Amino acid sequence: MSDVRDFIDDHRDDLLADLDQWLRIPGISAQPDRHDDVRRSAEWFAEAARRTGFPTVDILDDGAWLPAVFAEWRSADADAPTVLVYGHHDVQPVDPLELWHTDPFDPTLDGDVLRARGASDDKGQLLFHLLGLRAHLAATGRSTPAVHLKLIIEGEEESGSPYFEQLLERHRDRLGCDVVVVTDTGMLAADVPSVVTGMRGLAAATVSFHGPDLDLHSGSFGGAVPNPATAIARLVAALHDEQGRVQVPGFYDDVLELSDDERALFARVPSDDAEFLKVAQSRALHGEAGYSTLERLGARPTAEVNGIGGGYQGAGHKTIVPSDAFVKVSFRLVADQDPAKITKGFEQFVSEHTPEGIVSDVHWEGAGVRPCLVPIDTLAYRVLSDAISAAFDGAPVLPTREGGSGPEAALQQAVDAPLVFLGVGLPDDQIHAPNEKVSVPMLFKGAEAAAHLWSGFAAVGAEGLRAR
Amino acid sequence: MSDVRDFIDDHRDDLLADLDQWLRIPGISAQPDRHDDVRRSAEWFAEAARRTGFPTVDILDDGAWLPAVFAEWRSADADAPTVLVYGHHDVQPVDPLELWHTDPFDPTLDGDVLRARGASDDKGQLLFHLLGLRAHLAATGRSTPAVHLKLIIEGEEESGSPYFEQLLERHRDRLGCDVVVVTDTGMLAADVPSVVTGMRGLAAATVSFHGPDLDLHSGSFGGAVPNPATAIARLVAALHDEQGRVQVPGFYDDVLELSDDERALFARVPSDDAEFLKVAQSRALHGEAGYSTLERLGARPTAEVNGIGGGYQGAGHKTIVPSDAFVKVSFRLVADQDPAKITKGFEQFVSEHTPEGIVSDVHWEGAGVRPCLVPIDTLAYRVLSDAISAAFDGAPVLPTREGGSGPEAALQQAVDAPLVFLGVGLPDDQIHAPNEKVSVPMLFKGAEAAAHLWSGFAAVGAEGLRAR
Repeated sequence: MSDVRDFIDDHRDDLLADLDQWLRIPGISAQPDRHDDVRRSAEWFAEAARRTGFPTVDILDDGAWLPAVFAEWRSADADAPTVLVYGHHDVQPVDPLELWHTDPFDPTLDGDVLRARGASDDKGQLLFHLLGLRAHLAATGRSTPAVHLKLIIEGEEESGSPYFEQLLERHRDRLGCDVVVVTDTGMLAADVPSVVTGMRGLAAATVSFHGPDLDLHSGSFGGAVPNPATAIARLVAALHDEQGRVQVPGFYDDVLELSDDERALFARVPSDDAEFLKVAQSRALHGEAGYSTLERLGARPTAEVNGIGGGYQGAGHKTIVPSDAFVKVSFRLVADQDPAKITKGFEQFVSEHTPEGIVSDVHWEGAGVRPCLVPIDTLAYRVLSDAISAAFDGAPVLPTREGGSGPEAALQQAVDAPLVFLGVGLPDDQIHAPNEKVSVPMLFKGAEAAAHLWSGFAAVGAEGLRAR
Repeated sequence: MSDVRDFIDDHRDDLLADLDQWLRIPGISAQPDRHDDVRRSAEWFAEAARRTGFPTVDILDDGAWLPAVFAEWRSADADAPTVLVYGHHDVQPVDPLELWHTDPFDPTLDGDVLRARGASDDKGQLLFHLLGLRAHLAATGRSTPAVHLKLIIEGEEESGSPYFEQLLERHRDRLGCDVVVVTDTGMLAADVPSVVTGMRGLAAATVSFHGPDLDLHSGSFGGAVPNPATAIARLVAALHDEQGRVQVPGFYDDVLELSDDERALFARVPSDDAEFLKVAQSRALHGEAGYSTLERLGARPTAEVNGIGGGYQGAGHKTIVPSDAFVKVSFRLVADQDPAKITKGFEQFVSEHTPEGIVSDVHWEGAGVRPCLVPIDTLAYRVLSDAISAAFDGAPVLPTREGGSGPEAALQQAVDAPLVFLGVGLPDDQIHAPNEKVSVPMLFKGAEAAAHLWSGFAAVGAEGLRAR
């Protein structure tokens, strides 16, 4: 029996060697010509899970989606709680390639930094789990984990998880668990351990306004017929009031307002607006009045124009009244907003802001993504927080919220179990961008936290994990 | 000596034969590969003017512009007033060619209708002048016109007359006159003789808003930084109030409001909103409250969005906060608005509506076009109205205004003389569109009116023409 940290220190090279192999497989789910690589990537991870000791490893490749990997290792303790780890093995595209300083699929270790596409998002983080599990077994002297451990490793997260809910539905009987651990996020800084406790939901629509049936001469018709480009601009302008509050009917009805305690937690998170502006390459902050930048991003819903178009967009000028205009709008949602209700409210908003003579259409991108919020007063959260703290020599662990959206809420809903986030990415990992990297020491911290986590979960038991 | 109408009736075939030749020359000024044809077109008209008897015919081809034709025929009466006729010999492009029922450069006579590119705009109208002049000489028994007659026939009007003001400046000493006759417009209907008395001016700008220096992830940054697409939509929405009035500072300061008499004249013009909507293929009227459609188009200034763009415009969705957005806006101006003042007012408006964190830029398309308004209480106008009435067997002649913009105001300013419009196009001539046509009887009416006009102008003399 050895100490968790000692085991990990002794086996660092295993993780690095595995990562070097896996990162060479360009499993870009968004590119059909890379789908064979996505399959190779699934097979590689399945083999690595078998090697680690998982008795059951299956590739879920039902044709409707790119292959996911399911693995299961039951504990010898029949009453142990069941844990489901979620992650994904596919990676983002690499364009623009010319901005990479190294080959994105030739992993390059430079001191503590490993550069490659997928190093942080999400291959590095999945491999810390395999090392962490080995450390857990070594440190506890067990031949099976202290919890029944399941892995569900998706293959099309970077394409928006289009079939993930179908996958969850089809394999529901194998995915039952008492807690979900999502490993696809990050921490505030290498010396500031933290836990994501919320992801925003998403609803995205394209609104089309159709005016005259053809582009008209603005001299012969301008000023006498409705202009769809003007009308769509007025719709967009009506989306926010002067305080930056979204004017869609019922938009804030279900928003969980921040408690004083939660605002105090936000205030504890080290954050620097000047640094944020630098990363955003923006000249000013902007948003809902009365909230800090972190609160705006993590705890407040938004309406954002992603694109707008209509009429003549080329060089010079064409003096027309355009026939058509459109705007692409997306809403980031927070607990307990429901995409279905927001959808309805926005359609009412569009209808109320469609002037006479304009025909409007609202097209939604799918059914939307629910927001996900992890309560921090549960045993599941406390065990996670303690496990991370242990890996960081007892440092306090800060709860944070992310502004992005993922399939977490759908996962949580499908398995009907509490969910926590364990991720060790860093803000400057450049995920989704050229020169993605991962901090190797952070991966070892993740492995250490995971090793402790299984013991902690086992100690509180299934009932404790499910209790509120 | 013969009657004007008899002479024209006897020489109809001359006009048709000339037109058939000239229309075969595809002098499209907007297409560089047609510039040789524009030159051939100028040469053809120069030769036609010489044939008609003009002793002086010059092609003005100074290199900075496509060739214009200048012709002069002095009257034997030294004290006769000088008349300058303006028109253009270049034509519009013919795209989309597949919508033409006949070859645009193979003129086709079908009953009273002659179809070809340029038939109405503007070759047919220029050739009625040559026939009208011959009728004038025949009917008066003169060997020179009753007025000193000058023609300035531009070769790049369909490209926006980019160098016309330079041309006027360079040839100022040859263009001096007591009245300008613009022959490039139309009448309300074949049985409703009318005279254009106003054209709107024009100022057109592209406003660019720059936000963050790169497209940002709307999850990680949305709701916390300014969005240039939202900001430009709010700028556009602020352009008009709920009454459809333009909110640019000082916009209406110099607008000549319609007198009751002028509104009564507008009300006399046969017009049908249902028919207007059908032509516009629009589902509703829209515009400044308190004005009729004709007033909105002819006598009121407008601000119109010609194009808008920013962010992601492709299929599906990209959840970004875009870095850039722009809008192309054009203003139609009426007397006595000055494009230079509107330009200044709009720049102030943009600056007042640029939120913090957005960098704005306003790019103007040239210096703008001044509006042109012909007073109808002058001798010049009365003589013109009488000449047209004579061609229409004594029918009353209605003053109208066009919503479009042309180089008339610049021309009037350059020669410092009153200006009138004599044009016989019809609303359904399809100028600038496939299947352009001209009504041949209208061309003969034009020739008849022109023949009378020179006698009428001579009768009132230079002083009468210049008097207010």
